[in-house]
Amino acid sequence: MNRVLRSILVLMLMSSNTQAQHPGLTLTKGGVEKIMAGLNEAPLFKKELQLVQNEIDRQIERGIDVPIPKDMAGGYTHEQHKNNYKWMYKAGNLYQFTRDDKYAEYAKQMLFEYSKMYPSLSLHPTNRSYATGKIFWQCLNDANWLVFASQAYDCIYDYLSKQERNRLEAELFVPFANFLSEENPRFFNRIHNHSTWANAAVGLIALAMDNDTLLEKALYGLKSDGINPEEIDNDGGFIKKEGVLEAGFLAQLDLSFSPEGYFSEGPYYQRYAIFPFLVFGHALHNKKPDLKIFEYRDQILLKATKSLLNLTDPHGNFFPINDAQKGMNFTAFELITAVDLMCYIFKDESSLLNWASMQRSVAFNEAGYYVAQKLKDKSQVNPIKESVYYGDGVNGMDGGVSVLRQGNTDLFFKFSSHGMGHGHFDRLSYSLFDSSGEAIQDYGAVRWVNVDQKAGGRYLPENKTFGKQTVAHNTVVINETSQCEGKVKIAENHSPDLYHKDFTNPNYKIISARDDDAYANVDMHRILVLLEDEDFHEPLLIDLFAVNAQEKVKVDLPLWYQGALMQTSFNATKSTTALEPLGSSYGYQHIWKESKESLEAGNFKLNWFGNNRFYTLTGFSNASDEFIMGRAGANDPNYNLRNDPVFIQRKSNIDHGVFFNLIESHGVYSTVTEIPINPYGQIVKSEIHHADEKYIICSFSNEVHQWFVYFAREDSNPDANHQLTLGEDSFSWKGTCKLVKTKI
Amino acid sequence: MNRVLRSILVLMLMSSNTQAQHPGLTLTKGGVEKIMAGLNEAPLFKKELQLVQNEIDRQIERGIDVPIPKDMAGGYTHEQHKNNYKWMYKAGNLYQFTRDDKYAEYAKQMLFEYSKMYPSLSLHPTNRSYATGKIFWQCLNDANWLVFASQAYDCIYDYLSKQERNRLEAELFVPFANFLSEENPRFFNRIHNHSTWANAAVGLIALAMDNDTLLEKALYGLKSDGINPEEIDNDGGFIKKEGVLEAGFLAQLDLSFSPEGYFSEGPYYQRYAIFPFLVFGHALHNKKPDLKIFEYRDQILLKATKSLLNLTDPHGNFFPINDAQKGMNFTAFELITAVDLMCYIFKDESSLLNWASMQRSVAFNEAGYYVAQKLKDKSQVNPIKESVYYGDGVNGMDGGVSVLRQGNTDLFFKFSSHGMGHGHFDRLSYSLFDSSGEAIQDYGAVRWVNVDQKAGGRYLPENKTFGKQTVAHNTVVINETSQCEGKVKIAENHSPDLYHKDFTNPNYKIISARDDDAYANVDMHRILVLLEDEDFHEPLLIDLFAVNAQEKVKVDLPLWYQGALMQTSFNATKSTTALEPLGSSYGYQHIWKESKESLEAGNFKLNWFGNNRFYTLTGFSNASDEFIMGRAGANDPNYNLRNDPVFIQRKSNIDHGVFFNLIESHGVYSTVTEIPINPYGQIVKSEIHHADEKYIICSFSNEVHQWFVYFAREDSNPDANHQLTLGEDSFSWKGTCKLVKTKI
Repeated sequence: MNRVLRSILVLMLMSSNTQAQHPGLTLTKGGVEKIMAGLNEAPLFKKELQLVQNEIDRQIERGIDVPIPKDMAGGYTHEQHKNNYKWMYKAGNLYQFTRDDKYAEYAKQMLFEYSKMYPSLSLHPTNRSYATGKIFWQCLNDANWLVFASQAYDCIYDYLSKQERNRLEAELFVPFANFLSEENPRFFNRIHNHSTWANAAVGLIALAMDNDTLLEKALYGLKSDGINPEEIDNDGGFIKKEGVLEAGFLAQLDLSFSPEGYFSEGPYYQRYAIFPFLVFGHALHNKKPDLKIFEYRDQILLKATKSLLNLTDPHGNFFPINDAQKGMNFTAFELITAVDLMCYIFKDESSLLNWASMQRSVAFNEAGYYVAQKLKDKSQVNPIKESVYYGDGVNGMDGGVSVLRQGNTDLFFKFSSHGMGHGHFDRLSYSLFDSSGEAIQDYGAVRWVNVDQKAGGRYLPENKTFGKQTVAHNTVVINETSQCEGKVKIAENHSPDLYHKDFTNPNYKIISARDDDAYANVDMHRILVLLEDEDFHEPLLIDLFAVNAQEKVKVDLPLWYQGALMQTSFNATKSTTALEPLGSSYGYQHIWKESKESLEAGNFKLNWFGNNRFYTLTGFSNASDEFIMGRAGANDPNYNLRNDPVFIQRKSNIDHGVFFNLIESHGVYSTVTEIPINPYGQIVKSEIHHADEKYIICSFSNEVHQWFVYFAREDSNPDANHQLTLGEDSFSWKGTCKLVKTKI
Repeated sequence: MNRVLRSILVLMLMSSNTQAQHPGLTLTKGGVEKIMAGLNEAPLFKKELQLVQNEIDRQIERGIDVPIPKDMAGGYTHEQHKNNYKWMYKAGNLYQFTRDDKYAEYAKQMLFEYSKMYPSLSLHPTNRSYATGKIFWQCLNDANWLVFASQAYDCIYDYLSKQERNRLEAELFVPFANFLSEENPRFFNRIHNHSTWANAAVGLIALAMDNDTLLEKALYGLKSDGINPEEIDNDGGFIKKEGVLEAGFLAQLDLSFSPEGYFSEGPYYQRYAIFPFLVFGHALHNKKPDLKIFEYRDQILLKATKSLLNLTDPHGNFFPINDAQKGMNFTAFELITAVDLMCYIFKDESSLLNWASMQRSVAFNEAGYYVAQKLKDKSQVNPIKESVYYGDGVNGMDGGVSVLRQGNTDLFFKFSSHGMGHGHFDRLSYSLFDSSGEAIQDYGAVRWVNVDQKAGGRYLPENKTFGKQTVAHNTVVINETSQCEGKVKIAENHSPDLYHKDFTNPNYKIISARDDDAYANVDMHRILVLLEDEDFHEPLLIDLFAVNAQEKVKVDLPLWYQGALMQTSFNATKSTTALEPLGSSYGYQHIWKESKESLEAGNFKLNWFGNNRFYTLTGFSNASDEFIMGRAGANDPNYNLRNDPVFIQRKSNIDHGVFFNLIESHGVYSTVTEIPINPYGQIVKSEIHHADEKYIICSFSNEVHQWFVYFAREDSNPDANHQLTLGEDSFSWKGTCKLVKTKI
């Protein structure tokens, strides 16, 4: 959208259909009436109301506490202010639902406590953020505060006298909004989840106060910000994206997501980022219906919600890529808000209602009420998740992510853009999940979010030195150096490319991507197939990773498996009396080297047990290949790392090579029955018959069948015909990839 | 019971009331009629019947496979023969329930396959056991086979012709029983769970065949066995207990359990051992009712069942002491059999029915049917477990074990006899459990039961060199040497002594024991209190461990905590670039030394996070004390050990000293809400005011209260009056231990 068009839109918006009724943001007068009349038709909402009422009654008894800001996240003042904004928000809503003045009075008194303190506050004393707040150590938390406080204010607006409102607005809300915007352009005028919070916070209070000046800033950003393009934030991300001039809420909608709703930082951050989009969106929907915010950019907020839900493993946990803390899932507060609101806005989206049925809790607003009604007589229905591919970037052309789904197994493949400051250097990495949990893991972030004991809940130093480094991921490392030299600036220049995908076959799914930029003069190409076949107990993972370099390089392929090593077909004796780090930099310094052995040419096997399951990797090695067993935890003075195991396949001094790995999940064991079922895999042989830059032909077999994979590496045209003759054998196929099963 | 009395009993038993009816062991003609008539009144049994029928129908379709014995546990022939005996047992029972000849025919054909093979079998080729079997690598498994095969035979007895029966008995059963008894006296004539299986196996086939000669052996053992008293079994246990001459099933009942039903090897093995007791007991109950086997030794089998159930943690897992594999629980097949049979025999034991309701499955016999009927309209009821103390040894005088229970917390304390070959050198050790899992763990056995990849499922070498050693447990190690020099022979000479217990107070439970024999010239005395107090979020563990030596010694107190270290009040920087083992023997060689630091005199704190909970240890140290952080896994070439963390408090060069530790469980954290609740403990100070061989006076405090513990170490008379003056303070109390809470 160009600047002229925007100005017209602004005029239109400001002049028209502003509804001055209160409440009018995420709750409306009409909504309140409907809810109170139909409470018995919405048992989940009624339960939520009761829970909130108990909580706030308890707080009213304990009294209000608005301390002078002092602590980092996890500390007392931080947690108290966080609780305060939630409590006043809930009290405001309760006032609407119950018409009991005590709730309005509680929110009012709290707001006045803040209005007394706020004018005297200088910056938070911690001074550790690129954008230090006043109430919290970072502006981000201050924005959180205003998002909730605005809604509280909206709910008790009519309870307050005009004089009281004037005082709160003049002494608290307007200065607060100005601080988050004009006084912190680096925080406000950026395309980033932090700024979405900032835009939403300023926008919500603008709508609550009917302040068009602030609303324009919220929607379209500051007119000038004077940000130096070299400036970076606390996570090492650049404040400004090259070439991006737009800012404000609508620009966030334009630029934060791919066309299908993927968010570059990954689902953990998308879960966090989507909340202000939805809350401000909800308020705009109520106050500025002409804006049709939920239709904006082809229903981008609906797509964003759906992509989030699709990016969960079989247990509903988000795939923990980039700086994600593991264990965040679809029952998070933000996802309940998102699912309920999308159900409410897009009433035909029945699959969303299945997600809501699994969440077992609803949002504390009109959308939550709507969903609670719908769920009254509905039993839980497990939503069906299909294999998906999400292109990354504003145009969906900056690589992407994909989930192959077959049976109960999810394979997550990452070949997206870097993901800004929270990105990891992990192009072409995958992680593998089944109904019992993580089989091949992504380490996630080295951080204990909000846990004061661990550096106030912030990122720990090992997040940068290990968590983000390539060797901490299941992808190739060249010459013990991370992709893009571990530099965000280099990583943000180019993204990998999708090469081929095929989700059409009911028995297998294929994804393949290439990257030529992670390492200068090195081309990487990975092909992943998830195959369900009656011969195997669980879906089989076929992993081909081809590397071509213009000079001789050392190539490591780590696999961070979960569990206990059972058996190897080769010698892997663990060092008995001393451990040393595997290397000195790029994350290698954090891995204790437990063993390093040479492999013989041909097949090797590794069998492990994790999550009550047995797994076997069958690999194919050349004579000079090595195999390293390791464990995270070296150079970790403060015990910040989990002591997780890894094995690394190493090819040294090569200019081309293909890793060909098969991973079987084939058995279970219970400590109650003590009976191992199928403790061994059944693949007896695998082989690469041919591999060059044009074609790969490989095969594997069990006792009765042999499977061939034919793959064209240079032509992904689905109609292309390929032919290859190897000795007396001739292979011909149509399309990029063909799987053939034959009887031995 | 003396030999003369026995002979009279034998005569009485053999002459009277033998019922030749078939089936008559664990199933009776009358029972079958009752079950078939009332199937709809017993839905759980009906479900079990359906499951078994499906399983056996599938097996009948697949055909019979009786391979020549060859493999270790986990291998093909081992697993096939294990399955075979279960299948023929089930087929036999099915024949009775359905009257469908195909089931009888299946069991018959299988038995004939065995009878064809058996005469030609020499010993199993593995030759790895102190008592090698024929069908399996150890006689123990052969006995398992006969226990089930006897019941199968009993069920199809009337289906077979007399000629067929004669052939099976002459070619299979009698030689089989003779092999297990006369030909393997070391296996048969011992007081040990292996021998219970042997006795039951021979006894069951004797009852099925009405063979009084074999029955006498089963009940009373071999008349002479010629066992050398120095012989040991595969686990390092002695075959013969000094002074014990009796053998056979009744002697097992006399000597295997303490008067209250505790079994020296611990609950994991008791669970395994109890099964043949119950099956043979059930058959004797039916065939030899005059023996009143379930009244024997004051209902010892009922007591044994109840003690087993009491020795489970809040999740129902057995406390994993000695050579236990973790994760075995009350839903194990043997426990279902035990609970159902005890419900059936002792119809007034209503608490057992609660356990049955939690098992959700019933035994495939008349007892299971009885319980299924009772459960038809009963919902699940969590059984209530109280604090318990079990004296060990035949007279209950060889030390014991105790579980302190307060709130949802279980503290297991071990001061029992050694537990024969499966015992660990862990006197006065404890482990701590709460509703979220293990907080302070017992490592358990270094073994993967039945998992072929791990040495055929047998004990791994590290079980002896680490698992059994003192440092692998939460108790004191003197001079880096295990208790009793790590020798079973020394350990079996003496047991620790209960000093004091008090379970009478609703808010706290106390247990205390002493040991003077684990180390020459060293007296050890531990006092454990589990205190529930409104000031604390969860029950608080108070741990006092006093050591007195006649010369200067080094004293280590390891604590195997579960989880991730959050924070220490002292420097505990982990070695960054090299790890070495902590020592060279007695298990120390298996611990990587991560840090070793000197403590200052006074308090120190350690905060960790495990199972989604926060824990804090508050310790009290002298100036020269040291603190070691370590992790299992050194000298472990085959990756047999879990890499679990430990910390060790060390007092060097002392002749007396007291460890005073407080463990708080005080907070939770969820990765979905990301909000830590109470991440810090609240104890601010602890102090030992006085400690000598007579008295200990210590205290601890939070911000508002101070708690004192007064403890008399030399006089456990509950009516004794104690008085102690320290400077200006005077302490007086009645009884061994007093807790006092005062306002600060």
